[in-house]
Amino acid sequence: MAEVSIDLNMVRVSNEDFLKKAADCAPQLKETLVRPVEIVDIRETDGVYPEVLHRDSVDNMQNYHMKKGDKLCLDFGDHQVGYVTLKLASVGSPQDAPAFFKLKFGEIAKEMTEKSEEYDGWISRGWIQEEWFHIDVLPATLVLPRRYAFRYLEIETIDTSMKWQLVVEDVVCRSVSSVSLDDVKPVETEDEMVKKLDRVSLRTLKNCMQDVFEDGPKRDRRLWLGDLRLQALANYETFKNYDLVKRCLYLFAGQTKDNGQVSACLFTEPEVIADDTFLLDYSMFFGAALYDYYQASGDMETLKDLSKCAYRQMEVAAEQFNEKHILKDQEGFWGFIDWTEGLDKQCGVQGVYIYCAKRVQKIAEVLGDAAEAEKMSEEIRLKTEAAWKYLYDEKAGLFVSGKERQINYANQVWMILAEVADVKTCGEILDRVIAMKPEKGMVSPYMNHHFVEALLLTGKKGQAMDYMKYYWGGMIGHGADTFWELYNPENPAESPYGSSIVNSYCHAWSCTPTYLLRKYF
Amino acid sequence: MAEVSIDLNMVRVSNEDFLKKAADCAPQLKETLVRPVEIVDIRETDGVYPEVLHRDSVDNMQNYHMKKGDKLCLDFGDHQVGYVTLKLASVGSPQDAPAFFKLKFGEIAKEMTEKSEEYDGWISRGWIQEEWFHIDVLPATLVLPRRYAFRYLEIETIDTSMKWQLVVEDVVCRSVSSVSLDDVKPVETEDEMVKKLDRVSLRTLKNCMQDVFEDGPKRDRRLWLGDLRLQALANYETFKNYDLVKRCLYLFAGQTKDNGQVSACLFTEPEVIADDTFLLDYSMFFGAALYDYYQASGDMETLKDLSKCAYRQMEVAAEQFNEKHILKDQEGFWGFIDWTEGLDKQCGVQGVYIYCAKRVQKIAEVLGDAAEAEKMSEEIRLKTEAAWKYLYDEKAGLFVSGKERQINYANQVWMILAEVADVKTCGEILDRVIAMKPEKGMVSPYMNHHFVEALLLTGKKGQAMDYMKYYWGGMIGHGADTFWELYNPENPAESPYGSSIVNSYCHAWSCTPTYLLRKYF
Repeated sequence: MAEVSIDLNMVRVSNEDFLKKAADCAPQLKETLVRPVEIVDIRETDGVYPEVLHRDSVDNMQNYHMKKGDKLCLDFGDHQVGYVTLKLASVGSPQDAPAFFKLKFGEIAKEMTEKSEEYDGWISRGWIQEEWFHIDVLPATLVLPRRYAFRYLEIETIDTSMKWQLVVEDVVCRSVSSVSLDDVKPVETEDEMVKKLDRVSLRTLKNCMQDVFEDGPKRDRRLWLGDLRLQALANYETFKNYDLVKRCLYLFAGQTKDNGQVSACLFTEPEVIADDTFLLDYSMFFGAALYDYYQASGDMETLKDLSKCAYRQMEVAAEQFNEKHILKDQEGFWGFIDWTEGLDKQCGVQGVYIYCAKRVQKIAEVLGDAAEAEKMSEEIRLKTEAAWKYLYDEKAGLFVSGKERQINYANQVWMILAEVADVKTCGEILDRVIAMKPEKGMVSPYMNHHFVEALLLTGKKGQAMDYMKYYWGGMIGHGADTFWELYNPENPAESPYGSSIVNSYCHAWSCTPTYLLRKYF
Repeated sequence: MAEVSIDLNMVRVSNEDFLKKAADCAPQLKETLVRPVEIVDIRETDGVYPEVLHRDSVDNMQNYHMKKGDKLCLDFGDHQVGYVTLKLASVGSPQDAPAFFKLKFGEIAKEMTEKSEEYDGWISRGWIQEEWFHIDVLPATLVLPRRYAFRYLEIETIDTSMKWQLVVEDVVCRSVSSVSLDDVKPVETEDEMVKKLDRVSLRTLKNCMQDVFEDGPKRDRRLWLGDLRLQALANYETFKNYDLVKRCLYLFAGQTKDNGQVSACLFTEPEVIADDTFLLDYSMFFGAALYDYYQASGDMETLKDLSKCAYRQMEVAAEQFNEKHILKDQEGFWGFIDWTEGLDKQCGVQGVYIYCAKRVQKIAEVLGDAAEAEKMSEEIRLKTEAAWKYLYDEKAGLFVSGKERQINYANQVWMILAEVADVKTCGEILDRVIAMKPEKGMVSPYMNHHFVEALLLTGKKGQAMDYMKYYWGGMIGHGADTFWELYNPENPAESPYGSSIVNSYCHAWSCTPTYLLRKYF
């Protein structure tokens, strides 16, 4: 199902002061030169994931004299985000035709066996990391202008000629990030899986921390508010790069729709431009993310600057409630919550409203803005009461959503994170939904993160740890170097896009185990 | 049939003095900016050649908002050799995915309908002029680094996204050549076909005159001796760029095999390197081309410098004759003559030997080198007598070749061009072979050129003109802007490479009508 927003009539309003402050916080990227560690063979298996077999030492790379149809797959040993340069030469007779070859980059081995020409999903095939080149004169140094996210690089010789062969003399990746893993100590534990959860989280977060917090360095390579909030939380516990969060908050406030609503995401190239995608939960998270940032950094100036924008998001959202203080039915791609197909989001977003209102109230209190604090307090009361009155099914003991009164995880999780009841009541609701195992499950690590937070908030620390090991540990079990955008343990090949070849396998919103481990354990 | 020479043990010998003289004659390329003149539709027909239909004015190019699968075919109005720059932009919502598109260049419309992925010939698929690009940030100016030979350029949008479309704002070709058409007056005639033959020849020659005389700017883009000789002849009658010929002669003499044999072709990038392809007729043409150059330019210094190399080619060739003064049977790709499948080349190359020996004798005479002149004279006598004795079939009244005593055009044409008999006798031989229409026909314009020269040498001027109109005029009838590498009027789709998609449609050896018209009419 295509989930796309287009609003060609959207009027954008810029705050040049905010955009300047964002620009002033732009990071200097750190660079590391990384070379492949091994020549591998990636072979399909009966299962979902292919196997990666050792083929040769990378020291023997120059011995491969590649002719028509020959392939060479290089393993860089871990997930990289960077710029690749290849040194190429020819052997045999003089090069009497252009070298014609294809490069394919994959974050995980599975992408390397998927056929891009068969891709027919609803997001762009342009996201598949493949390039075709003709090189007229060898030897040559091919400096690829684009940035790739990958562990594997396959070089496929489409044609040379009968007279000469192609040799890959050297390949190097200039890996980039605004942070360094050297600056963070691993969590202290004897538990190997916990160590791995932390390590893979850190690499995920690091590789998403570029000029802004990207959602994924493969795709979409840009700043989404929902992702930012979780990345920022993980960052405060680890890299502590406050400026990058500050930059992103100023960017979102720096260009909005003319009604003041912040976009779900924005572009920074060729210039800052807010996307015409508006997701109600994401817009509201601006306030939550701002409050988190203030708590972590103590940066009162930024809190002051951006508080109005946070207030405004709640006002814009408030317009979407009916006279009973229940979120009106919406059409199209209006809120996110999770990628679960057919998920009813009414109740979840009502929970997000209460959750965010509580944080915006705190902002107002810090700033001594009594009227706004009072207003939020009243909103919280009204929306909470309405939720219990209209969205709670007494018989099931669970929150329901939409006309069909859909029971799903998201309803319960967001009402619990919004703290609409005491810990005991919330804990019982969570127990019931877990026992029920509703048909509308959780697909994204983003939703699963909130589920774990709900477990932790209701004191179910052991269950939370077990779940992290089951869910994020499941990806590690499948060989993840970084955590994936999507992971459904019951359907590992699932994709909301029509094919997993365009899935992102290093995705911001999946980096939270390091945060959860460090904050709650 | 693959015709490839590989000699990895070849030892190359350079003459640095000659290479320096070649470098000193390197041309400064002239540049012209050319824009497309029309948006066209190229559609397959029942016949060999597709039809080119007007689609839109090029002024409307920016109105094409290209989404997944959309194509735009631009007609540059005539054959171009140059470097292309595209100005690209996006329309709609912000560009939320890389622009992914393919460019395909074609010298003639037919290439645009041929499917490159189906190509399975024996020369490299890398010659097909197609490129794939991902552009992460639009608007962008895409400066293509490679040079293309084309009239048509198709832009195919493989994917954008559901949110935006690709716009081609401008396309410009920086066309290059070492000469300008403005410097040559058209032949004076009222005959429209003759005007066209001249014009298309001139454009063919001009577009092959780059840093060296290339065989074809699409393929192979390099200096072949057989092509050079004919290009040089046409050049003396038209552009009169003597330095470019001088440069090429010094290049061939500047690097040879260790036995002194000049290669059939050579590369100038990344440095001058003689190919490991040796064709006996091509090597011998070094002397003929040198003498032609001296006659046209009067450059005695070059004649002196390079005479030894010309002598040496005849010595190397002489080793290939048996004690009866007949060329020994050879295996592999040892001589060229024509691309005709199954052509026996023994007699043709014997004719070339005599032809070249006569020119080398003249060089020796000019230089006062009596011994060499005498040696050539004796060689001419011996090889001519042997040809009549062993290669002439009295009954057929025709020259034959090889064990199978094959009768073909090439035998007769080269013996006539070698002037092994008086004009009348030669004319009768030519009449007989034309009447007989041997199974082994003539495929390349190169061979057809020599056939017309034979007609002219035997006084058949009317027939020569008729044949030029039939043969080169046939290409014009099929829409040629430049003359093709291959043309068989009876099988227009013929290719020696397994598919006509890799044929060159602007080919040096096909440019000779302008020479023939200006020299003989």
